[in-house]
Amino acid sequence: MFALHGHIIYSESKDKLCIKENGYVICEDGISQGVYDTLPEQYKNITVKDYGDRLIIPGLVDLHVHAPQYSFRGLGMDMELLDWLNQYTFPEEAKYKELTYAEKAYKQFVEELRHSPTTRACIFATLHTEATYLLMDLLEEMGMKAYVGKVNMDRNCPDYLREDDVSEAIRETKEWVGNSIKKYKNVLPIITPRFIPSCSDLLMKGLSQLQKETGLPAQSHLSENPSEIKWVQELCPDSTCYGDAYDRRGLFGLYGKTVMAHCVYSTEEEIEKMKENGVYVAHCPQSNTNLSSGIAPAKKYLERDLKIGLGTDLAGGHSISMFRAMADAIQVSKLRWRLLNTKETPLTIEEAFFMGTKGGGEFFGKVGSFEKGYEFDAVVLDDTSLLHPQELTVRSRLERMIYLSDDRNIYAKYIAGCCIV
Amino acid sequence: MFALHGHIIYSESKDKLCIKENGYVICEDGISQGVYDTLPEQYKNITVKDYGDRLIIPGLVDLHVHAPQYSFRGLGMDMELLDWLNQYTFPEEAKYKELTYAEKAYKQFVEELRHSPTTRACIFATLHTEATYLLMDLLEEMGMKAYVGKVNMDRNCPDYLREDDVSEAIRETKEWVGNSIKKYKNVLPIITPRFIPSCSDLLMKGLSQLQKETGLPAQSHLSENPSEIKWVQELCPDSTCYGDAYDRRGLFGLYGKTVMAHCVYSTEEEIEKMKENGVYVAHCPQSNTNLSSGIAPAKKYLERDLKIGLGTDLAGGHSISMFRAMADAIQVSKLRWRLLNTKETPLTIEEAFFMGTKGGGEFFGKVGSFEKGYEFDAVVLDDTSLLHPQELTVRSRLERMIYLSDDRNIYAKYIAGCCIV
Repeated sequence: MFALHGHIIYSESKDKLCIKENGYVICEDGISQGVYDTLPEQYKNITVKDYGDRLIIPGLVDLHVHAPQYSFRGLGMDMELLDWLNQYTFPEEAKYKELTYAEKAYKQFVEELRHSPTTRACIFATLHTEATYLLMDLLEEMGMKAYVGKVNMDRNCPDYLREDDVSEAIRETKEWVGNSIKKYKNVLPIITPRFIPSCSDLLMKGLSQLQKETGLPAQSHLSENPSEIKWVQELCPDSTCYGDAYDRRGLFGLYGKTVMAHCVYSTEEEIEKMKENGVYVAHCPQSNTNLSSGIAPAKKYLERDLKIGLGTDLAGGHSISMFRAMADAIQVSKLRWRLLNTKETPLTIEEAFFMGTKGGGEFFGKVGSFEKGYEFDAVVLDDTSLLHPQELTVRSRLERMIYLSDDRNIYAKYIAGCCIV
Repeated sequence: MFALHGHIIYSESKDKLCIKENGYVICEDGISQGVYDTLPEQYKNITVKDYGDRLIIPGLVDLHVHAPQYSFRGLGMDMELLDWLNQYTFPEEAKYKELTYAEKAYKQFVEELRHSPTTRACIFATLHTEATYLLMDLLEEMGMKAYVGKVNMDRNCPDYLREDDVSEAIRETKEWVGNSIKKYKNVLPIITPRFIPSCSDLLMKGLSQLQKETGLPAQSHLSENPSEIKWVQELCPDSTCYGDAYDRRGLFGLYGKTVMAHCVYSTEEEIEKMKENGVYVAHCPQSNTNLSSGIAPAKKYLERDLKIGLGTDLAGGHSISMFRAMADAIQVSKLRWRLLNTKETPLTIEEAFFMGTKGGGEFFGKVGSFEKGYEFDAVVLDDTSLLHPQELTVRSRLERMIYLSDDRNIYAKYIAGCCIV
């Protein structure tokens, strides 16, 4: 049991940012016991870690990131989604068949993740089971709370990156799920069909069945790019929208929590279906910009009370920073407002911070806030390197972290009560 | 006379990036003598600084930045231009009347600029002459080559930040110009009417006359925001477009080089006028996003052979990095292509790098390239902190610098042949 002392900031809702200057947040058995002006009587004798004038925020939640793509972040930004997959992504992911390469690459990814403000993540690996274990080992060791998905894909992808035999793919995925649940404490498996175009109906059926049996969460991609959406319509002529194609295959929140990355072009019907089924949106503004996909209507999703968080989507996105994802979300919402729809007002700091903490955190349970009962993920920020001549409020200091911070500003990091950095 | 050895990268044109791996670039009296595979016979005995596997690029050119706004970078991003000026900018700029505050703030700005990849900049100060000298002193001492403008403004601005007496304002500006030319070697004055809405016709007339007498360059803002443009139409009913309003007041390239920031909404007539008059565009993608202004058609300007460079526009923009300006330019060009006009294809790495070096550099003369005869501005980049498991080409390494670099990657910096960092 311990308390952290500093300027404490967290979201209660998308519109309400709570700031407790010189406050205390208490952790007992990895769970927050709330935020206080002074230490309550029953906690008088607990250890207090005094972070002084620093900011203390909940850990940030990355709802969508591809670990094997970290290697080519900031490269190959000259194509749209489908060409980008064939030209850059699939050839790189194929390399993870070799464990030596996978180990080198995943160690680099996990090391940068450690020094980022992220405390929880939904991670795509590749279809290689051995390399996926390796990634899970590294994350487990680091203390990261993560859902990691061995990717499934069996069509419309190069021979060298295709699961030829569906029953064998399902068997292997099941075995990986079973072993992972036994083996890891921090890391959990997540069912991960790449996306409709690269998954046959038979494969989807098997994965849906697996979700039904295990109750595990699932992750995939939805309505990212116009050409992709058109392709899905051709592949699934029976479906009324892309989300419906997942739904008919039993992978749209039917048997467990489900998060869909992007949702740039979700129709009214798709939005309704996501809402009914409790499907989470992983809004990935940087990736949607880099791959020329467009701008997702995040404001609309928030106003419609969809479950929504943010994702870096490496390497469609180039930055691992979830602060950058918040800033990007605000920035593209302004361009959406200006260029597309003046009824959708730009996102606020409050909304972006909510999505990056409590909004995405909900996918992991009670995560992403310091309210009593929430798992204790915390990031301590030291902003002294960002010089300024004037006085700044605590809220302004948070705003600067969103726009200007990098790994140097991450002073300490706690995940479920454990100090990681 | 000396040579730098490393992987040398520079633009010849907007479409042509030249890469000389393990090459030499030679500096004589501050001027590049060209790039070579091996040292030519006549240079056999000169000093060679060997930067090994590092990248060597021309210094980057920031065509538009407000020094006094550095203090609130990353803050107050919730308004459009005109409200943002009144709410955040003018109150902050007013503080520079106090030299103690100005010194503290400008030292911070100049220190960050030193460690950035920028070697040349067009800088707005405030209307305060004493503080402007102070900024110029600091830049001069650092070795930065910069145009610095004491801002002129006499209407539609708060009392506390208005030049009440036009003749006195012109007299003071003239005196400042004369003193500056005598006093500084690296830093030059630039004529700086804030923008049409805050400058009376009389003030503009005086400044135009001053440009005529001195041949100095001028800088201002153009067609940034729809409300601003509408306001200019109301203020200048005789003008056919915003650019024409400057032109009729003799400040649109008539008497000297002129750079206009933004040009988000320039009409066909305005574009033609810029081309005829040789007016430079300072494309500021980050600021145009943060202030919800829109996306400037940079690709079109390049194709029409307008003179164009990039600007950070602190604190409409929040990052001082010109690499970030390149990445932002590419990113918003993709959104412009997707959302507005599929005929304007996204900017390439070549085009963004050109704008950030040789394109903007032209405003300073033969600047922004390593071709023979160019002033020797160079930045040496160490990218070893950005881990990767695979082999990377030199071009890919440059691409990563554009998307991922920060001040830690700036290994050395030369301005006009002098080593600054």
